[in-house]
Amino acid sequence: MSKGVKIVTIGGGSSYTPELMEGFIKRFDELPIREIWLVDIEAGKEKLKIVGEMAQRMWDASPYDVKVHLTLDRREALKDADFVTTQFRVGLLDARIKDERIPLSYGMVGQETNGAGGIFKAFRTIPVILSIVEDMKELCPNAWLVNFANPSGMVTDAIIRYGKWEKVIGLCNVPVMAMMQEPKLIGKTTDELVYSFAGINHFHWHRVQDLAGNDVTSQIIEKLYEKDNGLPANIFDVPFFKEQLKQMNLIPCGYHRYYYRYEEMLSHMLEEYNDPNIGTRGQQVKQTEAELFELYKDPNLDHKPEQLEKRGGAYYSDAACETIASIYANKNTQVVVSTKNNGAVPDLAPDDVVEVSAYIGSAGARPVAFGSLPPAEKGWLQVMKNMELCVEEAAVTGDYGLALQAFTINPLIPSGETAKRVLDELLIAHKNYLPQFSEKIAELEAA
Amino acid sequence: MSKGVKIVTIGGGSSYTPELMEGFIKRFDELPIREIWLVDIEAGKEKLKIVGEMAQRMWDASPYDVKVHLTLDRREALKDADFVTTQFRVGLLDARIKDERIPLSYGMVGQETNGAGGIFKAFRTIPVILSIVEDMKELCPNAWLVNFANPSGMVTDAIIRYGKWEKVIGLCNVPVMAMMQEPKLIGKTTDELVYSFAGINHFHWHRVQDLAGNDVTSQIIEKLYEKDNGLPANIFDVPFFKEQLKQMNLIPCGYHRYYYRYEEMLSHMLEEYNDPNIGTRGQQVKQTEAELFELYKDPNLDHKPEQLEKRGGAYYSDAACETIASIYANKNTQVVVSTKNNGAVPDLAPDDVVEVSAYIGSAGARPVAFGSLPPAEKGWLQVMKNMELCVEEAAVTGDYGLALQAFTINPLIPSGETAKRVLDELLIAHKNYLPQFSEKIAELEAA
Amino acid sequence: MSKGVKIVTIGGGSSYTPELMEGFIKRFDELPIREIWLVDIEAGKEKLKIVGEMAQRMWDASPYDVKVHLTLDRREALKDADFVTTQFRVGLLDARIKDERIPLSYGMVGQETNGAGGIFKAFRTIPVILSIVEDMKELCPNAWLVNFANPSGMVTDAIIRYGKWEKVIGLCNVPVMAMMQEPKLIGKTTDELVYSFAGINHFHWHRVQDLAGNDVTSQIIEKLYEKDNGLPANIFDVPFFKEQLKQMNLIPCGYHRYYYRYEEMLSHMLEEYNDPNIGTRGQQVKQTEAELFELYKDPNLDHKPEQLEKRGGAYYSDAACETIASIYANKNTQVVVSTKNNGAVPDLAPDDVVEVSAYIGSAGARPVAFGSLPPAEKGWLQVMKNMELCVEEAAVTGDYGLALQAFTINPLIPSGETAKRVLDELLIAHKNYLPQFSEKIAELEAA
Amino acid sequence: MSKGVKIVTIGGGSSYTPELMEGFIKRFDELPIREIWLVDIEAGKEKLKIVGEMAQRMWDASPYDVKVHLTLDRREALKDADFVTTQFRVGLLDARIKDERIPLSYGMVGQETNGAGGIFKAFRTIPVILSIVEDMKELCPNAWLVNFANPSGMVTDAIIRYGKWEKVIGLCNVPVMAMMQEPKLIGKTTDELVYSFAGINHFHWHRVQDLAGNDVTSQIIEKLYEKDNGLPANIFDVPFFKEQLKQMNLIPCGYHRYYYRYEEMLSHMLEEYNDPNIGTRGQQVKQTEAELFELYKDPNLDHKPEQLEKRGGAYYSDAACETIASIYANKNTQVVVSTKNNGAVPDLAPDDVVEVSAYIGSAGARPVAFGSLPPAEKGWLQVMKNMELCVEEAAVTGDYGLALQAFTINPLIPSGETAKRVLDELLIAHKNYLPQFSEKIAELEAA
Ligand SMILES: [Mn+2]
Ligand SMILES: [Mn+2]
Ligand SMILES: [Mn+2]
Ligand SMILES: [Mn+2]
Repeated sequence: MSKGVKIVTIGGGSSYTPELMEGFIKRFDELPIREIWLVDIEAGKEKLKIVGEMAQRMWDASPYDVKVHLTLDRREALKDADFVTTQFRVGLLDARIKDERIPLSYGMVGQETNGAGGIFKAFRTIPVILSIVEDMKELCPNAWLVNFANPSGMVTDAIIRYGKWEKVIGLCNVPVMAMMQEPKLIGKTTDELVYSFAGINHFHWHRVQDLAGNDVTSQIIEKLYEKDNGLPANIFDVPFFKEQLKQMNLIPCGYHRYYYRYEEMLSHMLEEYNDPNIGTRGQQVKQTEAELFELYKDPNLDHKPEQLEKRGGAYYSDAACETIASIYANKNTQVVVSTKNNGAVPDLAPDDVVEVSAYIGSAGARPVAFGSLPPAEKGWLQVMKNMELCVEEAAVTGDYGLALQAFTINPLIPSGETAKRVLDELLIAHKNYLPQFSEKIAELEAA
Repeated sequence: MSKGVKIVTIGGGSSYTPELMEGFIKRFDELPIREIWLVDIEAGKEKLKIVGEMAQRMWDASPYDVKVHLTLDRREALKDADFVTTQFRVGLLDARIKDERIPLSYGMVGQETNGAGGIFKAFRTIPVILSIVEDMKELCPNAWLVNFANPSGMVTDAIIRYGKWEKVIGLCNVPVMAMMQEPKLIGKTTDELVYSFAGINHFHWHRVQDLAGNDVTSQIIEKLYEKDNGLPANIFDVPFFKEQLKQMNLIPCGYHRYYYRYEEMLSHMLEEYNDPNIGTRGQQVKQTEAELFELYKDPNLDHKPEQLEKRGGAYYSDAACETIASIYANKNTQVVVSTKNNGAVPDLAPDDVVEVSAYIGSAGARPVAFGSLPPAEKGWLQVMKNMELCVEEAAVTGDYGLALQAFTINPLIPSGETAKRVLDELLIAHKNYLPQFSEKIAELEAA
Repeated sequence: MSKGVKIVTIGGGSSYTPELMEGFIKRFDELPIREIWLVDIEAGKEKLKIVGEMAQRMWDASPYDVKVHLTLDRREALKDADFVTTQFRVGLLDARIKDERIPLSYGMVGQETNGAGGIFKAFRTIPVILSIVEDMKELCPNAWLVNFANPSGMVTDAIIRYGKWEKVIGLCNVPVMAMMQEPKLIGKTTDELVYSFAGINHFHWHRVQDLAGNDVTSQIIEKLYEKDNGLPANIFDVPFFKEQLKQMNLIPCGYHRYYYRYEEMLSHMLEEYNDPNIGTRGQQVKQTEAELFELYKDPNLDHKPEQLEKRGGAYYSDAACETIASIYANKNTQVVVSTKNNGAVPDLAPDDVVEVSAYIGSAGARPVAFGSLPPAEKGWLQVMKNMELCVEEAAVTGDYGLALQAFTINPLIPSGETAKRVLDELLIAHKNYLPQFSEKIAELEAA
Repeated sequence: MSKGVKIVTIGGGSSYTPELMEGFIKRFDELPIREIWLVDIEAGKEKLKIVGEMAQRMWDASPYDVKVHLTLDRREALKDADFVTTQFRVGLLDARIKDERIPLSYGMVGQETNGAGGIFKAFRTIPVILSIVEDMKELCPNAWLVNFANPSGMVTDAIIRYGKWEKVIGLCNVPVMAMMQEPKLIGKTTDELVYSFAGINHFHWHRVQDLAGNDVTSQIIEKLYEKDNGLPANIFDVPFFKEQLKQMNLIPCGYHRYYYRYEEMLSHMLEEYNDPNIGTRGQQVKQTEAELFELYKDPNLDHKPEQLEKRGGAYYSDAACETIASIYANKNTQVVVSTKNNGAVPDLAPDDVVEVSAYIGSAGARPVAFGSLPPAEKGWLQVMKNMELCVEEAAVTGDYGLALQAFTINPLIPSGETAKRVLDELLIAHKNYLPQFSEKIAELEAA
């Protein structure tokens, strides 16, 4: 890397890209980038051009001389990369909208990371990420892969388990937001608290200590009920039951609302689904994205527009840039990441990918050992991780029975005939992106 | 026991008692009983008299000279007992009916062992069983406790974990029925097959081998779809998804229908609940029981009437008698029982109570080590066992937050406001039997 | 097996064979044998003839019509076998004598199952057993393999782990002898006690209960110090420290003397080693064997001679015959066997082979879950099992570093230069039987 | 701590104290100390005065105004302490010399942390540390305890397990030295490498990565054989077997020589023991200490003398000061410490104390999850940790059988009569410091 760092972003045409650029520009002193390659596919060609030109303008407006390359040729881009980030979406937002609307049409939680929708996003994404890993083994065997394609935990787990690629870190913005918003509740800054996270992506809990070493988790919980905070923008605002949080003495992540307040979350989602003026999150995002791309087209825009915050994934890119800088400069920054467990969460197997507090340095993520969770959280974490394992294996093998098992044990999918119908309908709806299931899909279509 | 065995049955006024007597009479040669004490409470006095006199008539019609004592004084009965069986129902069938109807009135699975109803049965039963154990420590410290009060797994676990009483075996008739009905499906007798069960009460799986050592599980699964069998009488007849069973290559117990076919089971239960001519299972049983007690009153009846089969718990008592005889005569009979894990199901902790194949002898149950379950079953088993642990602790401590946790992670209860309302309404409905929750109940009533 | 059972014994020329025949004759009613094939190698041809003719005479003197075939062609014999027993000794007794004398010449415990000698026996035996398993996959894929070639635990583990052959049971006579000798100490018969064993071959402990369910282990321990008993004939008679046994409340196997009384065992072995009139156990056995074969030559001898008891492996064959009969007739007899753990000993991995109490039936061994051991036993068991894993892997791969690791952590081998010298000298001494180490041996010889 | 930090050092009369002062002076900017209390016992009064006055001179020569208090009243000192460090030695160096000489007189490894000597140091130290913890609960319940009294791992484990005191960190200089010496071997600085340690005190391994994320452990191993380095000064210089290190691909700590090169270490220790001009390490240290105290008496000496390096514990105090400063200033410095496992070493229980790489901040040590060790290391670590558990329990209860168990499974003590004699002789020799064993000692003395 003596001549500067080469960054490759798969799914470079994403609306997130400007945030990523901003993060890199901000950190140029510790992360001296030489060139950035934005890669996308034919279907994303136009967006890639718009966002790519915008990205170049951002760099040109900075004091740094960085060239942004745009390409549809993934292999050309990967050659000798130092860091590869993945933010692609197989089937684009339209696929996400199907992930959401088909389950909801049967009264079930669709959603791009939990429930039926998340399972299908994994089915579509895992085969692609594994093919990227194969390219990387050949073209940039020393590179780090920083994934923020969702479902980030399963994708990261599959990269290690099936791709046999260890230099990977999975990211999510949910922990970042908790650590930014909660401290204020008790009159502290983030630096004045010590956060410990444990669980898996979109299904984790954290506890908090102050600098006298005291656990202040219950203090924060109290404050959450004075004024609700600490939630990702795209989670409907229903509070957790206070008695439950006090009992566990842990703070769940926002996505836990799907599990702890299933009834309300489902009803809110159905409301939006049924309202033609709102639509599902994917539909809203599609609208926001269209607006963003209109902005990006402006040849005078050379900085990240404020509207991007609304997009939902705020801080995702910031987490990614910080992670890359920490690896590059061996900074030992604390980041909450998806990484191989190694015992950090002793309730899961050492080779499972978990999402935990970690120190990020040149040797990658060093997960902080959290210790065992209390029974309720432990049991539920175990079923969710095992569900993930079923999804990943089904994504790789196309085993329909295993897909059905995953649907059955997923707490957000009431089992039975309707669940099976949702599974089948999603298989058919996404058939272009699910070659591993082609035989079963043909059988379903014939029936 | 030189002068013969003393048996004590707590909840002796139950309609099951005649089956128990039949089982003892059948086994008298290997289990020489001297006296039987049927114990009940004031509210069950009349039933106790009816069933007790019937029991004495059964023995009088047998070649054996056994005296059946009836008493409301538990401590008098327990003195020097060799075996204590527990089949009592705190709050009687009326409490069960509330367990069923209150959740169903909110569209949720009530049921006496799974879901909200089962949780409340545990809340009512565990404190009582722990007080029985305290009496036993004083009055019959060498006795064996054979429990078939439901929820049998949690009750047995609480006896060991909180009662610190190790000489206990928990029973259920579900495995018995599987082992009686399945072999025919492939043209075998029970003796020609080797059954291995693993899981927890009403949440277990089994695999089957033939005498050549071959796994014939998938062969049985195939046959289940030609003609459905192998189910307890009180489980509505909806088939498992064949693809799912083939994938796991295990046969789930009948109660797994609640988990694997939630939608259909709930809809069936709601149908019966809403039909004034049918009613919930508890209401049906109440009717059957009334008929049974009419029969039992007949001074000429001196054998178990056929109608008892309809009662649902068929073979429960048979399993109990066989277990007691196996302990007494060190028979090493195979019985599927709830017992301390000790590693038999390595996916759970060694000190958890599990339901597994075991050899029963004078040293109690010797569980057969089953090995790890596949991911989907493993994960689900882990969440269920941890739910049980929350329920047991809440039953002992009256911790409302923990009760709410158990409700939340139970796969049969959709979490949210309605779930909390069901919890609260059940607490109030059962307040006479829930002294441990009295403070919270008062608070709820005040609100 | 409709036309009767075919038994194949690899290492058929062993002096144990007559005991095996006696065991089969005794059990003919439940195990209807059609034919027996005794297999040996060229070097054992003469012994095979002697013992084979003796075996045929034993059958001819019985009421049963069984043909004993003698062959050097293993594959011919294995064709359509129902049971294969393995009792061969790679390198014969001369190799064993080297296993013993080379370590002892450096002041270390040699011995055919523990310490340096046992490690080398594993190095010689595991490749051969794996090649037998390959033949079985082709020629008798439904047969059961009953191994009593030492070190029986490691050999059985390697059969499953590396040979991927699950239908195997490993045997040892040590538990048999404990269960025969101890009960008398407290005035009981074996049938009046319940034995529970846990550990690995030649490194296990047991506890004992009476038929009232009471633990009588400490009662037996007390009696052991009145009159020492319960030891295999070939273990020098030094008592365990009573304080230690009382503390653990378990009875160790006789071989534990090597670990618990290292000093005395080593000194006794050195004494015999240095006395030309005694010699090591292997030398003694060689002498006994020569005498036995003289007896076997007698054309009038048609029953097992009493002198065989002195041989040391008494009851080995009895355990083997009982195991085979139990599998054949689904008898569910309790036997202590080496089998896959599956959780029975939760301190070791579920896929480790352990030696535990098991019920033997047509589905093979069903291990009894024992639960966790106390810390001292647990820790020592863990290091020994991991030593076995190193030995097995080195036996398969020929990895010298791993062999050195096994030598280093083995509690009977003081680490250092001398240990390494013993390792190297044994490699050279056994080079004809260690093709996997040929490269390293060549390097050692060149040095 | 607004008015500055109060530090209390138990065993303040130790020759290490000046190094501790130096460390504090160096870090005053980030750790603003107000007062230091050096505590010792009557027998150490004179040393306390000498070293205490020296300590005050060191502060007086610094730019900082810190008062060093000397006291024999531990409770007075502990009042409102912020940090308590423990470096006391029950029975002083004379007890250590007995720990060394008695085992060696029987040909066994004596030594203050491994083998028989270390076990007795634990027996003497644990009851005292537990009484200190009781005082702390009352007098300074928010203080951090930083222990470097040996055997540091067992002492720290006992503080948490039996003392129920969680705010403790155990220290050792061995990892510090490895991280200082090894990098040079491959032309790097410590900052250019990432170290990961796992194991228990004086029985751990580490692996090393460079800033490109590559494992450079084997590269360092190679260099160790060109020029041996990386050893604590008090470990005799015998190399590990290269084949063994290459196989494990881990670097053992210097103390592993006792386990991996037992023969040579023992022979070296016996040599020194038998040479009246050298003597055991304790005797050498006693000599060095006498010289150091002569120096300390010099009223002009106001800085740490160079001779202290020879003392053996170099960097101990540096590690302690860095740990304290990191806690105080939430620095997140990497230090290798003894702390609760929480899963960091998944081969041991989550509540075992382990010695691992950790980030030290205001919430204490955050251990880095290491993952499973290879079989040989895993097995040996497990037996050693379980030995520690036996020692700790025996230290608390005075259970002789358990002490004998610990002696038996300790790899540095050949089991048997002599081992038992060493145990008994040490019990008698240290009787003044072993009230928990008084009954057994009386029995031994009477015999
Ligand atoms: Mn996310
Ligand atoms: Mn049941
Ligand atoms: Mn043996
Ligand atoms: Mn140290």
